[in-house]
Amino acid sequence: MVLEVAILNVIHGQELEFEKAFEQAQAIIENMQGYKSHQLQKCLENTNQYILLVNWETLEDHTINFRGSEQYQQWKKLLHHFYKPFPTVEHYTTVYNST
Amino acid sequence: MVLEVAILNVIHGQELEFEKAFEQAQAIIENMQGYKSHQLQKCLENTNQYILLVNWETLEDHTINFRGSEQYQQWKKLLHHFYKPFPTVEHYTTVYNST
Repeated sequence: MVLEVAILNVIHGQELEFEKAFEQAQAIIENMQGYKSHQLQKCLENTNQYILLVNWETLEDHTINFRGSEQYQQWKKLLHHFYKPFPTVEHYTTVYNST
Repeated sequence: MVLEVAILNVIHGQELEFEKAFEQAQAIIENMQGYKSHQLQKCLENTNQYILLVNWETLEDHTINFRGSEQYQQWKKLLHHFYKPFPTVEHYTTVYNST
């Protein structure tokens, strides 16, 4: 299992619009091969900042299969214009998990 | 529920030592008031980088109760010397959660 982590900085004033677009966009990832679960969380300290956490079966399910898909073009169109700066996405693997 | 997020950069070469210390340290948070669950994950792109995710019942369970506790002094002693630079810790609240 691989955890995709992206810290998203949304253009000030566009937070609600972003959340609505994300509600629509999440159906896209939920249907991708290797997708396991996801969370979108909103920062308490910086109100235009979010964190996206997506669990994938393998790294390639995200970096090759999803990013190379037609569905990714829709995802980009729905979401990428909200971000400033454009986020760095990183992947992680579990060391310890209490659950 | 509040998610504590810390991106941890561990001094190069001290990764295994850090993981061992964390194994010990995690018993400390697991016993704190308001603690719900946690994960430590290791970055695939930057091998000395980790992400710590801790779910707390409230923000104050982390920022006031835990950080003000005697147990936090033990936590600091076990872990803080591994970090360079010292991490910024942020808190998030759920917008969407698929699980």
